[in-house]
This record gives sequence, C-alpha cells and structure tokens, in this order.
Amino acid sequence: MIESPPPPVMPANPPAIVLVRPQLGMNIGAVARAMRNFGLTDLRLGAMRNFGLTDLRLVEPRDGWPNPEAGPSAAGADIVIEQARVFGSLADAIADCTLTIGTAMTTRDMIRRIASPAGAVAEMQALPTTSALVFGPERTGLIREDLLHCHALCTIPSNPEFGSLNLAQAVAVMGYAWVIGHEAPPATWIVNHEGPAAQAELAGLITALETRLAEHGFFNPAPGLADSARRMLKNILTRPAFTGAEVQFLRGVVRSLVQPRGGR
Amino acid sequence: MIESPPPPVMPANPPAIVLVRPQLGMNIGAVARAMRNFGLTDLRLGAMRNFGLTDLRLVEPRDGWPNPEAGPSAAGADIVIEQARVFGSLADAIADCTLTIGTAMTTRDMIRRIASPAGAVAEMQALPTTSALVFGPERTGLIREDLLHCHALCTIPSNPEFGSLNLAQAVAVMGYAWVIGHEAPPATWIVNHEGPAAQAELAGLITALETRLAEHGFFNPAPGLADSARRMLKNILTRPAFTGAEVQFLRGVVRSLVQPRGGR
Repeated sequence: MIESPPPPVMPANPPAIVLVRPQLGMNIGAVARAMRNFGLTDLRLGAMRNFGLTDLRLVEPRDGWPNPEAGPSAAGADIVIEQARVFGSLADAIADCTLTIGTAMTTRDMIRRIASPAGAVAEMQALPTTSALVFGPERTGLIREDLLHCHALCTIPSNPEFGSLNLAQAVAVMGYAWVIGHEAPPATWIVNHEGPAAQAELAGLITALETRLAEHGFFNPAPGLADSARRMLKNILTRPAFTGAEVQFLRGVVRSLVQPRGGR
Repeated sequence: MIESPPPPVMPANPPAIVLVRPQLGMNIGAVARAMRNFGLTDLRLGAMRNFGLTDLRLVEPRDGWPNPEAGPSAAGADIVIEQARVFGSLADAIADCTLTIGTAMTTRDMIRRIASPAGAVAEMQALPTTSALVFGPERTGLIREDLLHCHALCTIPSNPEFGSLNLAQAVAVMGYAWVIGHEAPPATWIVNHEGPAAQAELAGLITALETRLAEHGFFNPAPGLADSARRMLKNILTRPAFTGAEVQFLRGVVRSLVQPRGGR
C-alpha cells in the first residue's frame, strides 16, 4: 500500500537564502521553516546535506542575532536557525556566490533582466556553483543599492494591485519552485557558460575601476552627479554576469588604460 | 521603459479556499493576504472580480469569527477577511463545489488519488464549475473524516523529514501554482467530462444508501464494525468523482433495489 507520494528528488546545488535587513524575528523563523520544508536534511550525520534550501544568511538583521523571536515560528527548523550566518553588508554576504538573483517587483528604473521563479530556478540549477537568492526587508523590499548587486531579478507573478508577499511566504514559493524546477528543462540555456564570477571578484573590478576613475577626475566635473555615475558604473558591470576570466580580462584592460601612453 | 513584468493572466474559475478548524487568527489573516496576492481584485467595482483566489470559507474556526487576530497579518487584504464565510461542517462548506481536493501528506490508509500542485491546479482549471481546495488545522492537518469528502489529495513536494508546512505558506504555494498553472497544459485530461456532481448531491446519495442499508440491517450483524462500514461506503462513493447524472442514476439503482422483488 502506498501511503504517500515518493519524496521529491532534491537538486544538489541550492542557493543561499539571503535576507537583507530583516525586521521581525518571527519572519526569520518562518523563513527557516520554509527552507527546511524544501530542503532535505540528514541529522544522523550531524549536519545538513547539501540538498534544498539550507544556507541562511542575514544581512544586518534589525533586532540583532540570535533572536529568540525566531524560535517559535521556526517550528523545529532549529538547525537552519543555528547555522545561519550574519553579515555586515550584502556584498559580504554574497562574496562567494556567483549568480545573484534578487526578488523584487520592480527594477527601480534600472535596466535589469527579470526572470520568473521557474526561470530563476532553472538558471541556478544549471550552475555548479553557489547562487544567492536575495530577499529585501518586510516594509520596503530591496532598494536600488541592493539591486545593484544582483545580476537579475525574479518576480513572483501576483496581483498587480496587491503584490507584496509576506517574506516567508515568498521564500516558500521560491522553495517550491526550487523543488519542482528540476523536473522541467529551462526555457533558455547558455552553452559553454561556467557562470558569473564570484561577487568578490566583481567587486574588486568595480573598486579598482572606480579608484582609477576618481584619480583621473572622472567624478569631479559634476560633483552632484557623482553618486549616480558610481551607481551607473556598478549597474552596467553587474548586469552582464561576467565570468571570472572576463573580470580578470577587464581588470587588465583598466590597468592598461591607466598606464602612460606607449608605456610598458 | 519597462519597470515591471506584465501582470499574470489570472484563470477565471478559482477554487474556494476552505480552512477546516483553523486554530490561529493570525494564520487566517496570513492566508487572506496570500489569497489576495494571487487573486486579481477590482475594488473600484466595490467587489472582487472572479479571478484568482478570493473565496475564503472557514469551517468551525477555533476562536470564532470574526477574529481581530486576523487583521494585522492580512496586511490590507481586508476584503477577503470581510467576505469570508463560516460553516458548521466541511460538508456544508463544499455543498456547492464539484471537484474537492484536500491538501495532505498522507492518504491515512485510504485509497485516494494524489496530485501534485500543478496537477491539482490543472484539474481545477479544466472545469467550468467551482472547486474546493481544503486545508486542515495547523496541528494535525486534515483527518480521515475530512479526507472522505475529497475526491483527491494534493501533496506539496517537500522534505520527507520535515514536511509540515505553515498553513498560510501552503496556501501561498498553491496560489502560485494556481497563477502559473494555466501556462502549461495538464499532464492528463478527461474528455467529455463535465466534472463531479456538487457535493450536496453526492451526500444525498450516500445518506439515502446508508438509510436503506440500515433499514435492511446491513450495519447490525457486526455493530463494532458499523463505523468502518460507513466510512468505507463514503470513501468508495466519493473517490470516483461521479457526475451529477451518474449520482442520479445510482439513486435510481438504490430505489430499485429496495423495492419488493418483481414490484413496480
């Protein structure tokens, strides 16, 4: 007699779940519960196996961490709570991640690729490396400065007149999309693509370029516009999802450009 | 400039969301929010249009109704809360529904068809009539007596070691499955099928048959087994999802059988 359907086959390269400036401990606990619902754990080995959603990262949680408010709503997903890591910035939280996808309903005026949940999951599952799925604070969602770190956005299809999802419900929907995602091939596929560079590599390029530009007075002529120029720089360098080799190549380009003409 | 992706096309025959003996008002509010996230509303007309998940039905809510605890977590989905209806039994709540699908992780020893969320959604979207999607109480989920009312079960694929979803998160996952479901054709399709009879019709057949059987002493020989016999009767008459015409036909069969032999 079959009592239940067979357990789902869990994909093996789950994304980190990154909560940016989460406000309520209760919601962090509910996120942990949803993650464990859609993550396969093997507690006999004393650690979670690397299937499903188990890697929780918190960026500047409003009420500090650990937060006792998270316990009840975690409803037993203690191991996710215990293994959660806290970071001082989104950049630090995603430093080891390659593909970074932010969940948001709007690009906030920037040119950005928008994926469906199934599309975002397909991209992440096509990579052998660690991806990051980033969620914003309850009240505002991700702001522009957060989105600048994201190669693409993911929008959960919802009522345009009432589209703001509860944080943990959004994680649950993405967890469900993650678990069912491997059943269907992605709609598009990039051939011969080892995936974007780790975010720390990309940040190194952007910092180096910004420093050189500042030295060359790039941000001086219109000081009031310096901030938007810096944002534009970050935006157009993040969106293409350059590979590690491409990032190194671009650093070489920058180094070359700032050398004296004809120099060696 | 495209700021956001186009809104999803909402299917036009949404199921009723039926919460059986919900315990926490906070969860009922969170369910309402998830429903409105995945339901298109047009408040200018003073009423919700019949797209997405808007029809909330509560069976014996533990703390009564209305419940002020539901307001904050509804986060503005007041119209779902205000239009929610309360029923004294699951049978009453689904009397006008045809296809009834219960969300559960186990069939509780009964033979029942189990659908994935996508499969359940495909079946509901293939019918022009009102379906019911039934969710159990937070602590226990649907019990066997609830499942007897369901033509099929739906299991959200999840961690077999930690499969219990938060009630509102489960509704959110099904809401997401509902919104994306129309994009893909169902895996199987029943041709020439107008859908199951309304549950009240089926209940009429079961009651009539039980009454006749009792009159004929069917439940007497083994009084200790009478309950399981009644359960078996309900189970095997619910599972096939008989059409209205088939239910009427079966009532005719019962009437015929209880007449004196050779009678007219």
